[in-house]
Amino acid sequence: MNKDPAITNADKYKVIFENDRIRVLEYKDKPGDKTTPHHHPDTFTFTLSAFERKLYVDGSEKIVKKKSHEAGWQPEQDHVGENIGDSDTHTLLVELKEPRPVEK
Amino acid sequence: MNKDPAITNADKYKVIFENDRIRVLEYKDKPGDKTTPHHHPDTFTFTLSAFERKLYVDGSEKIVKKKSHEAGWQPEQDHVGENIGDSDTHTLLVELKEPRPVEK
Repeated sequence: MNKDPAITNADKYKVIFENDRIRVLEYKDKPGDKTTPHHHPDTFTFTLSAFERKLYVDGSEKIVKKKSHEAGWQPEQDHVGENIGDSDTHTLLVELKEPRPVEK
Repeated sequence: MNKDPAITNADKYKVIFENDRIRVLEYKDKPGDKTTPHHHPDTFTFTLSAFERKLYVDGSEKIVKKKSHEAGWQPEQDHVGENIGDSDTHTLLVELKEPRPVEK
């Protein structure tokens, strides 16, 4: 099964840039929207709006509440995301294509 | 000589995130501002405002005019940047710390 969010949830994730080192996604949804399960590599996130979301990761739930223009890091994971706030979500995701360096 | 823009031009470049894989800078300046020479590794850029700038790279000059929320790629380089427009510059720079993969 393809777990690329640009395929599984193409209505919400748009590829806005790609080269050999990174791929950049712009994510938009509305209150109440929920994605299907998908996979992210190591990803830098930067919010373009404030939002409140619930992430379902490995059988547990996590509330993520952010202001606009907040930087964050999302380690490689499979998840489902749900907009549980009362505002649209708008965020940038910079995916790193290279494998994580081996721990020294 | 240290050519890290967070050191050489600390009034304009702020480190807003850093881990072992990336460092993220937020850049702000005003019309007429010009940096001193500095170095960037391979960097993803995302504009948070429209701007018009002149980049001095390897003895040549390049005009860069962008709208807000434009994605771009800046390959590793030394340069000087100058705000030649009539609006402030506000932009995000995601620096990749790992060396560029060897060409196959």
